Amino acid sequence: MILYGDLNSGNCLKVKYVAEHLRIPFRFISVDTLSGETRTPDFLNKNVFGQIPVLELKDGRFLAQSNAIMRYLARGSRLLPDDPFAAAKVDEWLFWEQNEHEFFVAGCRFHMFYLGRSKASRDALRVQRGEQALDFMEQALTDREWLANGTLSIADISLVAYTQFAHEGGFDLSSRPNLTAWVRRVQTALGLPETLH
Amino acid sequence: MILYGDLNSGNCLKVKYVAEHLRIPFRFISVDTLSGETRTPDFLNKNVFGQIPVLELKDGRFLAQSNAIMRYLARGSRLLPDDPFAAAKVDEWLFWEQNEHEFFVAGCRFHMFYLGRSKASRDALRVQRGEQALDFMEQALTDREWLANGTLSIADISLVAYTQFAHEGGFDLSSRPNLTAWVRRVQTALGLPETLH
Repeated sequence: MILYGDLNSGNCLKVKYVAEHLRIPFRFISVDTLSGETRTPDFLNKNVFGQIPVLELKDGRFLAQSNAIMRYLARGSRLLPDDPFAAAKVDEWLFWEQNEHEFFVAGCRFHMFYLGRSKASRDALRVQRGEQALDFMEQALTDREWLANGTLSIADISLVAYTQFAHEGGFDLSSRPNLTAWVRRVQTALGLPETLH
Repeated sequence: MILYGDLNSGNCLKVKYVAEHLRIPFRFISVDTLSGETRTPDFLNKNVFGQIPVLELKDGRFLAQSNAIMRYLARGSRLLPDDPFAAAKVDEWLFWEQNEHEFFVAGCRFHMFYLGRSKASRDALRVQRGEQALDFMEQALTDREWLANGTLSIADISLVAYTQFAHEGGFDLSSRPNLTAWVRRVQTALGLPETLH
């Protein structure tokens, strides 16, 4: 199995975290999005969406979209329940992440961390909606340790990927104690380094 | 089963289309987002995300997030393959829809259709990314009749929901023949009225 990606990308880290946690062996091949490596004909043959991560299975077939790949790798494991309703409660967070979190929180980090631009020049809509997404998580985590079903799942892994680096996009997590504690909890469960100090 | 929603919302229509196509009986209860009905304590008890659609199961449990609900209802049916890899190819489009299509295409329609504002005053980023999403679909549909696995699936239903109304958000589908033909194909398969003329 080969994972094509960028280890600074939360979307790629999601897949790496799941594979490592489930001890699924894989080889990592670095792809540089900024220099156009995801737009070459060879890469588009792997992934029509022209994005990372991409997973190449042993039989040569490819899968794209970070949450779709995570869901594929996690099936039958403790990270994704077999029960259809419990799995749907995980899916709620996976779709919310792509619709209400990633575009805003990761978008601001891309602006500052990848492009080296200033906090003040971030897109106003992305800042506002990113703050809103982090507030929503802070609120949701008042009565639970994990996002879905009372246990670590790919919902937590999907959302920790960019939340743990939110400060690199100009967001302040220190006023959100539930969120900060949850980031550390997920990082500990996955054996990841602490990113919040 | 009760579906709480708004029949002008593509996200709600997705769930309605799947239930009707699979002949799953349900009762529909209208919720008005503009008057704040999704922000009441009673509604937030149904759905912490404070959004429509919400599905209430017979046993009183609730599910949120349109694509998560579709996935739950379609399991074991012809709309979502049992094979894990084929299901993941459907998931690719479901996550792409929430990340690269809905926010832009539905966002522009909300601006014009719900808020009654002008085409010229649409958010520039949303217009640009919406055009890009529609161009991508036009390109992807050059070599296929359905988005995933050569057959109608919840990937098509998820994406047709707002694509069929893209003109109500100021987008012009007439220059995209593959996309237009696909919208009609999905509408015919689901027995829906034509929206493109």
